[in-house]
Amino acid sequence: MNIPKSSFPRIIIIGGGFAGISLAKELSKKEVQVLLLDKNNYHTFQPLLYQVSTGGLEPDSIAYPIRKVLKDYPNFFFRLANVEKINADKKELVTNIGAINYNYLVLATGSETNFFGNTEIEKNGMVMKTIPQSLNLRSLILENFEQALLTDDLHKRDALMNFLIVGGGPTGVELAGALAEIKKGILPKDYPDLDTRRAQINLIQSGDRILKEMSEKASEKAEDFLEELGVQVWKNTRVTSYDGKLATTKTELTFEAATLVWAAGVKGATIKGLDAEEFLIRGNRLKVNQYNQLIGNEYIFAVGDVAGMETEEFPCGHPMMAQPAIQQGKNLGKNLINLLEKKPLKPFVYKDKGSMATVGRNKAVVDLKNYNFQGIFAWFVWMFVHLFFLIGFRNRMVVFVNWVYNYIRFDREARLIIRPYKRDYSRFKD
Amino acid sequence: MNIPKSSFPRIIIIGGGFAGISLAKELSKKEVQVLLLDKNNYHTFQPLLYQVSTGGLEPDSIAYPIRKVLKDYPNFFFRLANVEKINADKKELVTNIGAINYNYLVLATGSETNFFGNTEIEKNGMVMKTIPQSLNLRSLILENFEQALLTDDLHKRDALMNFLIVGGGPTGVELAGALAEIKKGILPKDYPDLDTRRAQINLIQSGDRILKEMSEKASEKAEDFLEELGVQVWKNTRVTSYDGKLATTKTELTFEAATLVWAAGVKGATIKGLDAEEFLIRGNRLKVNQYNQLIGNEYIFAVGDVAGMETEEFPCGHPMMAQPAIQQGKNLGKNLINLLEKKPLKPFVYKDKGSMATVGRNKAVVDLKNYNFQGIFAWFVWMFVHLFFLIGFRNRMVVFVNWVYNYIRFDREARLIIRPYKRDYSRFKD
Repeated sequence: MNIPKSSFPRIIIIGGGFAGISLAKELSKKEVQVLLLDKNNYHTFQPLLYQVSTGGLEPDSIAYPIRKVLKDYPNFFFRLANVEKINADKKELVTNIGAINYNYLVLATGSETNFFGNTEIEKNGMVMKTIPQSLNLRSLILENFEQALLTDDLHKRDALMNFLIVGGGPTGVELAGALAEIKKGILPKDYPDLDTRRAQINLIQSGDRILKEMSEKASEKAEDFLEELGVQVWKNTRVTSYDGKLATTKTELTFEAATLVWAAGVKGATIKGLDAEEFLIRGNRLKVNQYNQLIGNEYIFAVGDVAGMETEEFPCGHPMMAQPAIQQGKNLGKNLINLLEKKPLKPFVYKDKGSMATVGRNKAVVDLKNYNFQGIFAWFVWMFVHLFFLIGFRNRMVVFVNWVYNYIRFDREARLIIRPYKRDYSRFKD
Repeated sequence: MNIPKSSFPRIIIIGGGFAGISLAKELSKKEVQVLLLDKNNYHTFQPLLYQVSTGGLEPDSIAYPIRKVLKDYPNFFFRLANVEKINADKKELVTNIGAINYNYLVLATGSETNFFGNTEIEKNGMVMKTIPQSLNLRSLILENFEQALLTDDLHKRDALMNFLIVGGGPTGVELAGALAEIKKGILPKDYPDLDTRRAQINLIQSGDRILKEMSEKASEKAEDFLEELGVQVWKNTRVTSYDGKLATTKTELTFEAATLVWAAGVKGATIKGLDAEEFLIRGNRLKVNQYNQLIGNEYIFAVGDVAGMETEEFPCGHPMMAQPAIQQGKNLGKNLINLLEKKPLKPFVYKDKGSMATVGRNKAVVDLKNYNFQGIFAWFVWMFVHLFFLIGFRNRMVVFVNWVYNYIRFDREARLIIRPYKRDYSRFKD
């Protein structure tokens, strides 16, 4: 790989998500050479992917060019690359664009969907971890309604208009709420020749409450909100198979649906060479000490979702969310400089700034440390916080314009099938 | 196809571009059943595609859901369909979602790229007639620079940073200007480790002036603007072959370039059943009379780019642009009603509202009937007119925000490779 030689030590960061970007910014203007590698040339603001899937926001407004984040930093380099293997003994990375050596390596690779080994669901289900995946889901949702128009078989039509969302975490809840709003506000106008009241949105949760990481009050209220919007919430229900039309569960309950969105689990996105059992904790996350340093290798670090830091407060690692990633990136940035300057390292302490989820228009739930609230004020807080954390002034403006428009007009205009999702509808043929 | 029976006559419109939408609107609330068919569920504002390709605008802001245009019109139906054949004798359309009969049929299918039979250029060149094509070009432009970083061979690197734009019409001129601005304003910051001054933008025109449909003053001034921006303009030059790396011309002049954009010609997008010589004029356009009625079939009409209405003023048909399409759609809407009410038809008369093209920041050319002007005022007029004709308030707002931002910041933030364009770079391997 063509990276200029430098007298400064080389730190390679793999991944330009929240953790990687926050770390990179912290290292700016320091006496280190930083190389950031990512499969994409943009940072994705994952918390808003569900709004892309449901036509509320354009994909480009939640993406930000990584090169732009790093401009003005003379010792920063970016390469669009897929890291294939880590040879820790040689301090070397193997990528699709060549091999490269590091002095320090930071994995900020985030997480990927966890199907828990169910390849059938992996094949037939939809996921929403990246922009192309979210756009595929957007296309499929719209294609299903176009398809429903083509059949006279009420049974098939219902299945085409039936949406299963598996997983009652924030992603599942937010997607279910957005779909319910589309059903109410947009479908009747767009499809006057279809009885869209028959469309169903089912949210399926294996545990006994949704948003289980949040307060009980938040869970209850979110469930109320979803029910107000017409979402069917199924608790203590575990989906076991899905063939593209029929989903079965552990009980006798089954669903016929053209769409199953799998939001029931994520796991750390590890890389060959560091993916052996011995490096991992539960959830496929890399076991790190309180300085985000890999246990067993002092030159390798992990931050964000892929980092499994077991603490007293978080025995299974920190929540796989933006805040711990941002905070770990920042702390590690300081520690890498400390390390180079031979100063003592500062252990990572997570400052819980609270968590939140939105269900729909004027309906959100917010948990702060000692206080929680729900409803319209929570919804404004949710919007404000998301606008604030979005990278880029232009993105903020465009998202803001869209939100104001969608709010006033009860609309979502990005209901576009730009690239059709080539669904196999053979199970729905007459 | 599942379309309710109606006592009103059925008018089928194929295509939701400028002509189709303008016709559909004109027919709203009349005593006809209207069925609009399109391959996409959205209308594309084609004049701004080049801004999508160059990262200035997000694709969703120049697309508009067709179903939304037609909502509130009870006798309107839309189907996402590909029309495969017209059986004019049976008044029947064959589509991928079934056959359907019409009382009146209107082709508003627009135009497609004309490679004049050169399959090699068709295979290796890029085009910009649809949103996915424009996004592919956007990806490729960015991928070329990422690729250029990977080679030490200066010769190959130059070829990767060399852009050929074939065709000096508005599309070619606008794309060349936008690329030149990217070269100047964005590349040096995004690619500090690449000598991006060596990037080249070549605009190749077969005739002796660019913008040949406009005034000579406009052509001259546009050429000056392009040269100020560093675009190389080649006139009287005809590209004859392109293998993905080397482009040859009629003379000894050759270019080595990873990107060739073909904007050198369009032709009417006809449909099987009505594509025989006898129905067509030059440019593959359907021969119509002054009422946009197909010569030889009183139940079939054509409007917009696909319509070839030979008049005294326009012996080869009207210019293939938005204005004639919009005006023909409107006039035909009135005439179809006249026809049903057995009133006399009104011949189409094109009102030339002028034409314009933009080269870059503060640089545009405008021709009005008796007056033409160039420069910053022309540029503001260009922007105002494009905002005005863009469909949808939200789109206008988002485009406006982007333009203001890009203007103030000299920036284009949608430089995202959302879906990589899978280019065969084998000719550029070391």
